[in-house]
Amino acid sequence: MGLVVQKFGGTSVANVEKIKNVAGKAIREKQAGHDVIVVLSAMAGETNRLIDLAHSAAESPDEREYDSLISTGEQVTISLLSIVLNDMGYRARSFLGFQVKILTDQAHQKARISMIDTETIRKELKKGAIVVVAGFQGVDEENNITTLGRGGSDTSAVALAAALKADRCDIFTDVDGVYTTDPNICAKARRLERISYDEMLEMAMTGAKVLQPRSVEMAKKYNVPVYVKSTFSDEGGTLVTKEDKEMEREVLSGITYDRDQVKITVVHIPDRPGIAANLFLPLSERHISVDMIIQNASSQGFTDLTFTVSKKDMKTAQKIVEATAKEIGAKKVEVDDDVAKVSIIGVGMLSHSGVAAKMFKTMADEGINIMMISTSEIKISCVIQRKYTELAVMVLHDAFHLEKKK
Amino acid sequence: MGLVVQKFGGTSVANVEKIKNVAGKAIREKQAGHDVIVVLSAMAGETNRLIDLAHSAAESPDEREYDSLISTGEQVTISLLSIVLNDMGYRARSFLGFQVKILTDQAHQKARISMIDTETIRKELKKGAIVVVAGFQGVDEENNITTLGRGGSDTSAVALAAALKADRCDIFTDVDGVYTTDPNICAKARRLERISYDEMLEMAMTGAKVLQPRSVEMAKKYNVPVYVKSTFSDEGGTLVTKEDKEMEREVLSGITYDRDQVKITVVHIPDRPGIAANLFLPLSERHISVDMIIQNASSQGFTDLTFTVSKKDMKTAQKIVEATAKEIGAKKVEVDDDVAKVSIIGVGMLSHSGVAAKMFKTMADEGINIMMISTSEIKISCVIQRKYTELAVMVLHDAFHLEKKK
Repeated sequence: MGLVVQKFGGTSVANVEKIKNVAGKAIREKQAGHDVIVVLSAMAGETNRLIDLAHSAAESPDEREYDSLISTGEQVTISLLSIVLNDMGYRARSFLGFQVKILTDQAHQKARISMIDTETIRKELKKGAIVVVAGFQGVDEENNITTLGRGGSDTSAVALAAALKADRCDIFTDVDGVYTTDPNICAKARRLERISYDEMLEMAMTGAKVLQPRSVEMAKKYNVPVYVKSTFSDEGGTLVTKEDKEMEREVLSGITYDRDQVKITVVHIPDRPGIAANLFLPLSERHISVDMIIQNASSQGFTDLTFTVSKKDMKTAQKIVEATAKEIGAKKVEVDDDVAKVSIIGVGMLSHSGVAAKMFKTMADEGINIMMISTSEIKISCVIQRKYTELAVMVLHDAFHLEKKK
Repeated sequence: MGLVVQKFGGTSVANVEKIKNVAGKAIREKQAGHDVIVVLSAMAGETNRLIDLAHSAAESPDEREYDSLISTGEQVTISLLSIVLNDMGYRARSFLGFQVKILTDQAHQKARISMIDTETIRKELKKGAIVVVAGFQGVDEENNITTLGRGGSDTSAVALAAALKADRCDIFTDVDGVYTTDPNICAKARRLERISYDEMLEMAMTGAKVLQPRSVEMAKKYNVPVYVKSTFSDEGGTLVTKEDKEMEREVLSGITYDRDQVKITVVHIPDRPGIAANLFLPLSERHISVDMIIQNASSQGFTDLTFTVSKKDMKTAQKIVEATAKEIGAKKVEVDDDVAKVSIIGVGMLSHSGVAAKMFKTMADEGINIMMISTSEIKISCVIQRKYTELAVMVLHDAFHLEKKK
């Protein structure tokens, strides 16, 4: 007897028929003797529909109201699942962020969970209920509704698993696990049996869509075993867990790509201390995440600074950066959204040399120009021209023999 | 400078364009120097869509979950209106039932408001905000979402007006006021300039759809002046208010009809004390409202009992009554849903005699058989065959000369 958290994404709850399938999966765990918490996303497409509605009402919708609007999708699916479960003879109760309650900071659209009150849920579990919780949402100290950003339901699930010390957190999705790369663009992609938190985090942060990065951070922090599984099949699955010896034998775990990138270059900046702060502070104040940053060595008192942001932040970032560039006496600002980032990830990099060189050479051999490079201990990312994305992924997958289990 | 509550129904917020029109109406009051609270329904059709969704998930959906599901429609419209208002340069904040908070009892689907916390709203009004509140919903003591029944947003609006001592409560709808009868079936129907709370209540309770009966009860209790107005025109309107001398000159104010009625007869009941209680207690326990009740004089120790319920309760009521009938030894239960109720309403009845006789004669002259009669001080209702509904309304409208303002 344990406690299992199950999270189902939008395609798994796209209609009542599919919600009944989800009910079956929850009941199976219940019948196996476990306490069950189910976390749901909105029906596939619903959150996008609400976002479109918001933008048809205003170009820059008020953030508080925007969150209140786009959080309704989960309320629909959790109520429906609870209706189905009750109808099948199981006690089930749905809980919204304010009902749990899931407390967050005030950063609308990318709020962070600060506390989860487990009392109400525990009480219901004790009564034998299957507890169904709305993913993606919380409330701040003033009871304003907040949302956790794209894929936030993963984070809701892992946070609940951590707060309630669950034995397992199953993330059900439309693929049957984590792959060495996107099977849609590389037929040789191979499903991983297990992957470490750190690698999964790098993969999620560099473009793998299977898990929200924050959910992986949180899983690592609280050591929650996360299983990525398919809703529609019992086969396969990937366990995201602590590093173990087996993993270390492989150089790379995966290759990711991210087309949601915009490269911004501030050209010919008079090189004074504090310039980076001048540029990036106003961006962070607007909650715009800057990804890669490269500053050229100063030459004759001037420097260039290049960085990438997410596409959705392009307009705002450009406006802010152009204003700052003027202030600090830079020559101009160049924006290039015809780029993509390709990354290779693996804890094996720590013990293998020549990985970077091999990556660069593989791309050079195909005539792919590398515009920016950034590295971490277990990751190397390159910004390249967008049109070479698939090519880069495929040749790298081959070069590092990711199709074979070592 | 006063405080105005404005309520807009589903057709007034059916899409973003119409919501912008609503924003204009709120801003006009704001610019006139008033504090403004706007109460909204869900987009036209949305609540029905959600109800259908619930019933596709289960034949008898769990009541708590059902309320959580069907209350999402208002969350969408209040967020959208607030987005529009903020975009137009006005501070606006939306509030859900739990955020206000609007406390109700636990009777899901027909909850009653027990308390409204006005602090949050007052604070926002003080900051100059237009406050936008979700109609139709509240929360019970345990933070479960409850709904107030069809037309519940009217009650939300009047309750807020009462709690905040508003100067006016404007109910915007797709008609421009309260009519002597439904203009769709009687071309001679005339808009009333004003109508008393009691008459409005009788009209609402006997089929006029323009206001939810509870909202009128509440308006009367707290003496809230209610204006029924058209969202789409500045002309017309009806004031619902205390009785005044002018009203007394008219015999009738209006004629209503209600096709949402089912007649149930329990035949040949052994006449013992407590029979009515036996029959009606289980119905009230299931929150089924019984409307008209008629018990025949006992003959040779047996009696018949006839009553009406709403169509939506037909199946449940029939099941319950058949069980009780068996217990108490009645012969059988007859259910007839081919009926309608036609009512005439007017404070003038108090001082005019012969009103009932005139009603019965007018219908008899047309060969309309009256199956049940029930009267109050200012109302007479007759249950007739459904097919005669329009005919009855028209001949009564003529007979009492309702087309003319006296």
